[in-house]
Amino acid sequence: MPTIVVDVMPKAELLDPQGKAVSGAFSRLGVSDFTSVRIGKRFELTVDGEVTEEVLAEAKRVADEILSNSVIEDVVGIEVVA
Amino acid sequence: MPTIVVDVMPKAELLDPQGKAVSGAFSRLGVSDFTSVRIGKRFELTVDGEVTEEVLAEAKRVADEILSNSVIEDVVGIEVVA
Repeated sequence: MPTIVVDVMPKAELLDPQGKAVSGAFSRLGVSDFTSVRIGKRFELTVDGEVTEEVLAEAKRVADEILSNSVIEDVVGIEVVA
Repeated sequence: MPTIVVDVMPKAELLDPQGKAVSGAFSRLGVSDFTSVRIGKRFELTVDGEVTEEVLAEAKRVADEILSNSVIEDVVGIEVVA
């Protein structure tokens, strides 16, 4: 069944305490290849049937209105996977 | 600066209470296009410099050992974005 993946990330100008915590853990564990870490959410919406233009438009709508909080988060991607 | 994106999802055989909650919200709000919702995490690791084979290997290692809990989660994707 096709799946629509919606990616939501904290806005770039906001602190991301969870990401900072992982970044701190990296330092303590000697992992030095990554200068920063940000953590967001990945939603997998399963579609029963075909992904029509309407279904995709509905996915965009719920991504903006239900799955993300536009005050603190951005929807950074919506894509259909097989 | 290049970014490595690591996607982590709850294992398919496990319940995902957060996803179920969103799915329930969809029903109550009259959104009927999606039969199920699963929620995972998206990590963005910023790399200072080039993404070499070694950096990518290190990203795979931290994805498996630090960013995900292999008992309940799967690393479903590691990709480099510009």
